[in-house]
Amino acid sequence: MAASIKKFLSATLFEYETQKVIAISSYKIGLIYRGIQMLIVTYVIGWVMLREKGYQSFDTVVSGVTTKLKGLEYTNYTNISAIGDRIWDVADWAVPPQMNSAFFVTTNVVITKNQSQTTCEEDKDNKWHASCKNDSDCTKGDVHMLGWGVKTGRCVNSSREAELRVCEIYGWCPTEQDILPLGDDKVLMTRVKNFTVLIKNSVEFPKFGIKRRNILDSMSKNYLRQCNYRPDSEVDKYCPIFKLGDIIKHGQAISQEDAKQIWITGVYTGGARKLNVTHPPAGMVAIDIHWECNFDYDEEFCKPEYKFRNLEDGQVGRGWNFRHAYHYVEDGIHKRTLVKAYGIQFFISVTGRGGKFDILNFTMNLGSGLALLTLATVLCDIIVLNIMRKRKKYRQAKIDKVGLLAALTVAYENS
Amino acid sequence: MAASIKKFLSATLFEYETQKVIAISSYKIGLIYRGIQMLIVTYVIGWVMLREKGYQSFDTVVSGVTTKLKGLEYTNYTNISAIGDRIWDVADWAVPPQMNSAFFVTTNVVITKNQSQTTCEEDKDNKWHASCKNDSDCTKGDVHMLGWGVKTGRCVNSSREAELRVCEIYGWCPTEQDILPLGDDKVLMTRVKNFTVLIKNSVEFPKFGIKRRNILDSMSKNYLRQCNYRPDSEVDKYCPIFKLGDIIKHGQAISQEDAKQIWITGVYTGGARKLNVTHPPAGMVAIDIHWECNFDYDEEFCKPEYKFRNLEDGQVGRGWNFRHAYHYVEDGIHKRTLVKAYGIQFFISVTGRGGKFDILNFTMNLGSGLALLTLATVLCDIIVLNIMRKRKKYRQAKIDKVGLLAALTVAYENS
Amino acid sequence: MAASIKKFLSATLFEYETQKVIAISSYKIGLIYRGIQMLIVTYVIGWVMLREKGYQSFDTVVSGVTTKLKGLEYTNYTNISAIGDRIWDVADWAVPPQMNSAFFVTTNVVITKNQSQTTCEEDKDNKWHASCKNDSDCTKGDVHMLGWGVKTGRCVNSSREAELRVCEIYGWCPTEQDILPLGDDKVLMTRVKNFTVLIKNSVEFPKFGIKRRNILDSMSKNYLRQCNYRPDSEVDKYCPIFKLGDIIKHGQAISQEDAKQIWITGVYTGGARKLNVTHPPAGMVAIDIHWECNFDYDEEFCKPEYKFRNLEDGQVGRGWNFRHAYHYVEDGIHKRTLVKAYGIQFFISVTGRGGKFDILNFTMNLGSGLALLTLATVLCDIIVLNIMRKRKKYRQAKIDKVGLLAALTVAYENS
Repeated sequence: MAASIKKFLSATLFEYETQKVIAISSYKIGLIYRGIQMLIVTYVIGWVMLREKGYQSFDTVVSGVTTKLKGLEYTNYTNISAIGDRIWDVADWAVPPQMNSAFFVTTNVVITKNQSQTTCEEDKDNKWHASCKNDSDCTKGDVHMLGWGVKTGRCVNSSREAELRVCEIYGWCPTEQDILPLGDDKVLMTRVKNFTVLIKNSVEFPKFGIKRRNILDSMSKNYLRQCNYRPDSEVDKYCPIFKLGDIIKHGQAISQEDAKQIWITGVYTGGARKLNVTHPPAGMVAIDIHWECNFDYDEEFCKPEYKFRNLEDGQVGRGWNFRHAYHYVEDGIHKRTLVKAYGIQFFISVTGRGGKFDILNFTMNLGSGLALLTLATVLCDIIVLNIMRKRKKYRQAKIDKVGLLAALTVAYENS
Repeated sequence: MAASIKKFLSATLFEYETQKVIAISSYKIGLIYRGIQMLIVTYVIGWVMLREKGYQSFDTVVSGVTTKLKGLEYTNYTNISAIGDRIWDVADWAVPPQMNSAFFVTTNVVITKNQSQTTCEEDKDNKWHASCKNDSDCTKGDVHMLGWGVKTGRCVNSSREAELRVCEIYGWCPTEQDILPLGDDKVLMTRVKNFTVLIKNSVEFPKFGIKRRNILDSMSKNYLRQCNYRPDSEVDKYCPIFKLGDIIKHGQAISQEDAKQIWITGVYTGGARKLNVTHPPAGMVAIDIHWECNFDYDEEFCKPEYKFRNLEDGQVGRGWNFRHAYHYVEDGIHKRTLVKAYGIQFFISVTGRGGKFDILNFTMNLGSGLALLTLATVLCDIIVLNIMRKRKKYRQAKIDKVGLLAALTVAYENS
Repeated sequence: MAASIKKFLSATLFEYETQKVIAISSYKIGLIYRGIQMLIVTYVIGWVMLREKGYQSFDTVVSGVTTKLKGLEYTNYTNISAIGDRIWDVADWAVPPQMNSAFFVTTNVVITKNQSQTTCEEDKDNKWHASCKNDSDCTKGDVHMLGWGVKTGRCVNSSREAELRVCEIYGWCPTEQDILPLGDDKVLMTRVKNFTVLIKNSVEFPKFGIKRRNILDSMSKNYLRQCNYRPDSEVDKYCPIFKLGDIIKHGQAISQEDAKQIWITGVYTGGARKLNVTHPPAGMVAIDIHWECNFDYDEEFCKPEYKFRNLEDGQVGRGWNFRHAYHYVEDGIHKRTLVKAYGIQFFISVTGRGGKFDILNFTMNLGSGLALLTLATVLCDIIVLNIMRKRKKYRQAKIDKVGLLAALTVAYENS
């Protein structure tokens, strides 16, 4: 019995099985074989190991972003009562005052002052559902989803367009007149391109317990007061303060000339000009803060890279606006100033990964690489056994025939 | 010496080693072998190549989303002074006016008008910490985290509940009475289901330098003025304008009947009705814009797909509300109108990937697939060497014994 | 012909090719071989299968987050007119009232009351561009990006600093004086650490059609009214209500003592104290809700885990603030109260994955694991053929020579 177990163990535990190989000596096939092996080794070392850093384990970032906007606009249009002679500071043009990973900058406004809940004529731009001949066209109590109020049942003369009669409504009155203050082809706020944003980004690589900020330790307070992001400068490419005009320019989706045009005239003339004139400078811009860090080196080398993209590129439905209001009470009556704000929405995203040498990942990728080497044999076999002149000889050397059909097959091959 | 080097080179560089194989001719094992090979080839081609597009390299999207809400609500409750006879337009019910990748729609409100910093009775809903018998129960200067102000040290009769005495506080007075205007089982804003949202989404696939928008170039201005998203229409399933009621309906977490109930009565009656009556229509809805693009075809085929999910599904702690205020100055006194807004929070996420033929990925996946073919041999070996009748014969053919223990093993196997 | 096809089929379809192996019986190499095999099997089972759950297919979460803040602050500084004797409730200190996946809590403010568009002196902190000797230093119409208004062209005596002359501007007047109400080393709102936030998070695993909420079904309304998150309690570690002070404490980037200091004195004394005194308690805190769910078990076991990280850690440019305003009309003049709010920004992220047994993934990972076993042979071959004493014998047993150079090679090896 004991002998039997010993025999069994010898046969399984202490036995090493390895493939029997045949070595074919041939300049041609030898060169092909070693060539393919070289390609695979080059791929494993060059691509998997060096480029994709297959010897490291990776971690993505946990991140927080805040922005601080600065800039001042002065509009001196005393002839336009809704705008007037006034200063716009950050609390006026940044609406809402903060958003998570985004900020909005107003470039143009339609302001409707002194609205209160009372009766007035419906906006004439809504005439397709508000124009009327007589009172019977204005169903009392009717609320149109795209209108400004509930119909009172009266048809009145429009004060805004001659010979137009529109339904009277009850709602926030007077209703907004959707006319841009300087017309469709001019933007109100021309200094926006000089506004700046300070982006503060703190990231953590939880796996490695490493924290980094986009405000580097080497930056002094004085530097942060006056620096400006410039991608071509060794130092200033890490400056976290960006001129909005630069962001658009670096976005590169539009030519530098077009970008200039957006800020100055408010119209993007690339593409179909006619379609766009009703959309003053407005758009979406993505700012990506990218952290690609190799913690096998000192973490001081872990610095962010900034990328900008102008996302707006189409011709229909470009631009963007939304309405917000300032509420107040005058003489006991709740009133509001309605603002239709046109502007540019900036989105900030933080991406990144940090890597550090990891024995397990290194082994696994090396192993997979070695396993790929069997491919060289597979490919060469195809050549040796099917294409080469001496294929029959090699085939016989490589393959031993066993079993019922062997004789048959040999006969077939020799036929 | 030169001859020695030449010998060495011949032995290594110009030598091709390939496994010696034995070919077993047997209908049974042949069929099994080819069958398993077919399965693996089918998997590699069908799954890895076609379904997972293993021949492509991929890129995820950089994205920006803005929303534009439209809709009008009219509440005609002249008997409820806090609400009254008034119109709610987008600047009233969308709070804050914009958020990054999200929007909130008010469906019900508790409004407290004319608050100013003075003294008044604490809210009776806080009676567990505010009720008192006499002044000594109200510690002067005490600030309770869940109360509305600092205690003045006086115990006063409640004007809101008979025979209740509560502490007087200093704070925003009068304090809010947390009573829904139409009661717990009715919602204030019944037209919300007809409100619409225009979602503008611009994406870029940076690797391929391709930009796409969810407003397709084929859409005219007129189409965008009147279209509505309908998933079953070939054209309208790309319309970027959604009725809020449709979004809820397509979310499908709740039955169509329940959805109707949410909008009309404000109570979700699925599940335990009694638990929910204090939570007027409110919830979280996720809108996912998915871009699955194959840039081996024309990029015109790269269009978004919209998915909706109602995330709220539990029974305790459902619904959502938050407080915001309108500030004003009257007679030199800073006052405010406090609004407790109930509503639905919509979250927009953009996911997607674009793929394009890539020779490296194609090669690597093909290689891995070929490597899988060795599995067929492994599986068949197990069958051939252990299960089949002629296993002893095959074993002898496959395995050459070498070394010390060989004789022993042969003896064991023949025993 | 038929016979020829039959022959061909026999030779390809009904033939099974398997590597010929040689079995080397040797205690040494046998043990090494089985040892390496054991390591690989252990890795495949232990790491790939059990730890990385290679037998499952995975899905990430679709998620929605809302927050509800509670807390009350009382500031009794009748000597500081901008602050005064007042209560701050959630509508005062949470600005904006809601953000997507984030919330901001005010801890300190600089308030400038009664601003209107008129003329006044420029802020003296801007003296590097606003100080002047006479009118000619103040170019009329000049708008400095970092100033408060447009220069009127007059040089006036500063009322804020003796013997300083500054340009007069037209803008929101009076300009802000950037002085913290209690000085640079004291925070205004000392109760913030006791404020609470209720985080509601609904997630869905679309692939499995499973919805989960962080408010568990086992939680009663009463429990939700009084519970507090505590990571060391079996029950309370799922409580979705967090004290802000606890979040900072659990963030652990700073010592408990430092955290205490932040809330009480508003100054973070860890690191370089001198640099930070001008930055009252302010920072960025990340809250991560992590769902790691195994749906092979009951979905009731799928519960969230909360992780906190204080992201602020540097010395320059710490802290954060932004400006917002309350607008009102008094005597027909549009006025505003400007608030420069210092505070803490909390970011909420939801991560997670759910796994369920999947036959395809199981097969593929098992297959890849088996393929790894060939590595054992590769490694042992290196040892057997190059290192072991009997290497020449094994080499001859393993390799059959074929071809032109075979004789040469044999000669070389025997030399």
